[in-house]
Amino acid sequence: MRTAVSLLPRELPEEQAAVGNLVAEHRSPSLGDMLEYHMGWVDERGELPLAPVSRGKALRPTLCLFACEALSGEWVPGLPAAVALELIHNFSLIHDDIQDGDLERRHRPTVWALWGQAQAIVAGNAMRALADRTALELTRRGVKSQTAFRVSCLLTRGYLEMTSGQCMDLAFEGRLDIRLEDYLEMISRKTGALIRCAVEMGAMVGCDDERTVGTLAHCGSTLGLAFQIKDDILGIWGDEDATGKSVGNDIRRKKKSFPVVYALETANGAARKLLVDIYNKVSLDDRDVEEVLGVLEELDVLGYAGRVTQRQAALALEEARRIPLPPWALAETEGLVQFLVQRES
Amino acid sequence: MRTAVSLLPRELPEEQAAVGNLVAEHRSPSLGDMLEYHMGWVDERGELPLAPVSRGKALRPTLCLFACEALSGEWVPGLPAAVALELIHNFSLIHDDIQDGDLERRHRPTVWALWGQAQAIVAGNAMRALADRTALELTRRGVKSQTAFRVSCLLTRGYLEMTSGQCMDLAFEGRLDIRLEDYLEMISRKTGALIRCAVEMGAMVGCDDERTVGTLAHCGSTLGLAFQIKDDILGIWGDEDATGKSVGNDIRRKKKSFPVVYALETANGAARKLLVDIYNKVSLDDRDVEEVLGVLEELDVLGYAGRVTQRQAALALEEARRIPLPPWALAETEGLVQFLVQRES
Repeated sequence: MRTAVSLLPRELPEEQAAVGNLVAEHRSPSLGDMLEYHMGWVDERGELPLAPVSRGKALRPTLCLFACEALSGEWVPGLPAAVALELIHNFSLIHDDIQDGDLERRHRPTVWALWGQAQAIVAGNAMRALADRTALELTRRGVKSQTAFRVSCLLTRGYLEMTSGQCMDLAFEGRLDIRLEDYLEMISRKTGALIRCAVEMGAMVGCDDERTVGTLAHCGSTLGLAFQIKDDILGIWGDEDATGKSVGNDIRRKKKSFPVVYALETANGAARKLLVDIYNKVSLDDRDVEEVLGVLEELDVLGYAGRVTQRQAALALEEARRIPLPPWALAETEGLVQFLVQRES
Repeated sequence: MRTAVSLLPRELPEEQAAVGNLVAEHRSPSLGDMLEYHMGWVDERGELPLAPVSRGKALRPTLCLFACEALSGEWVPGLPAAVALELIHNFSLIHDDIQDGDLERRHRPTVWALWGQAQAIVAGNAMRALADRTALELTRRGVKSQTAFRVSCLLTRGYLEMTSGQCMDLAFEGRLDIRLEDYLEMISRKTGALIRCAVEMGAMVGCDDERTVGTLAHCGSTLGLAFQIKDDILGIWGDEDATGKSVGNDIRRKKKSFPVVYALETANGAARKLLVDIYNKVSLDDRDVEEVLGVLEELDVLGYAGRVTQRQAALALEEARRIPLPPWALAETEGLVQFLVQRES
């Protein structure tokens, strides 16, 4: 069996050895153990974690249940769809960590770092199958089988779109000529599709009116874009205490996120040459990060990205207001949108 | 971007460089290109292949359509289910090739060897999503949405079982104490689940009687076991001209297939010590392969495996005969079972 250690790409830091040593102790994990570990329910020995493990924002299930409740007054029927979304999201995280060579997620070793790439591929696939199975259980919550069927179709479509976004993202790696337009198309698939899907699935369980479902789905798309651009902002300028990552983290990782794509597209002359030279390097040091941050400041990229996020958020709200939602739901929508664009982590 | 070259495990033969060189030419493949390439419809440049590409036996779709036709007289309504099965099978091949580090499949470079592991993981995931989408299209063939829904549930269940079998298989690697019982449990999941699923899905589209569907599903399970053990036999003693692989191929790969698991479980004394010593080596040479073949011959493993295959095949036929199939269908069943156990590749 090839272990995580033998597969680790050479450019990763020395901590790989420390993490890799754990592999020897866990060569025969059961599928369930790996999934429960990833979800933060157990530690790598299958035992209850000593300290609570961060579980993320649960954005997708929240949006799904909220859309369902806003339209029907009940969120319980949407539960299987919400759970399916969170499982799909976690499936994609398990595979993403392999693809990006990331050794840690939420301050714990990733599944592939512990059990090797082959097991992690299978673990991700199993998580995805559980998601599908959960979505198909909607009928047990009293949802008509025709609706459950349509919700499953939506999930599959959303997932396929997410996959094509991941494919675009991988193809962008190593390229410095990505247009902002292409980047937005990519993230609207990679992140946006599942967020739109969350709102659309919840709406479909909560109401039969196709137009309402369509309007909320569109609102979800817009919100997804705002969410991702805000994420990109936090990836560079996020507060270290809140995000757990140092300032400039995404720059050090050479991640081609919104601010960098925008800067590469708009910078001229010496600034552009500096960016291109730095992004052509194999790895970046503190000084490179400082220089990139300097160019971003010159171009007021933070200001621009903030304005784009605000505009998308406003558009999302506008779309939500086109539906006759009860006052509490509209107030919650406003709160949710504000949270997504103002959050610090 | 990490390319296939930088990820290739060091123990692989030198041909990796030749294959790896292709990567540079194909850094931005579209998802569709990769899937079409894997299916053998285009070459790695996205153009029609100059020579026809081997597509495999299409066993799963054949079983599905046959079950549907045998019970209803029509095979067309089963088409989306059959296609979904073949796509799921191909999805698992794309991921298997990554996990096994295989550079070639059907005499062509594998997807990961051409485009890298990250892209191949995504390509496999997309293939799987297409499978789900296709299964959900059953209603377009006039299948009731309730039936289509149940067929989708079956596919998901079968797929989850296959995944748990893959997980067991990976956990078996490096172990020499696998009991034949555990091996059979593993292959009944890894290979058997989707073969049973093929028969069951076709039966479900073709008839409403749960008992008939259940009996045929059981027949599919038994057939799946016979199929895999025959595959394991061919992996060691298959005719080179027919299989395209040299005699002893699975031994050289240290694959813990039925014959080897049986031999490890039954050999005593010097024979057992020889097997254990050889399977503890990092890689096997011609002499090791010869010695293992010698032990297998002493224990008459080929004879035993052949008898087990025949018995499973007979059981499968017995189960099929419990259903009042039309004479043509029964004759075809007999032919199919004979083909599966007598095939040379």
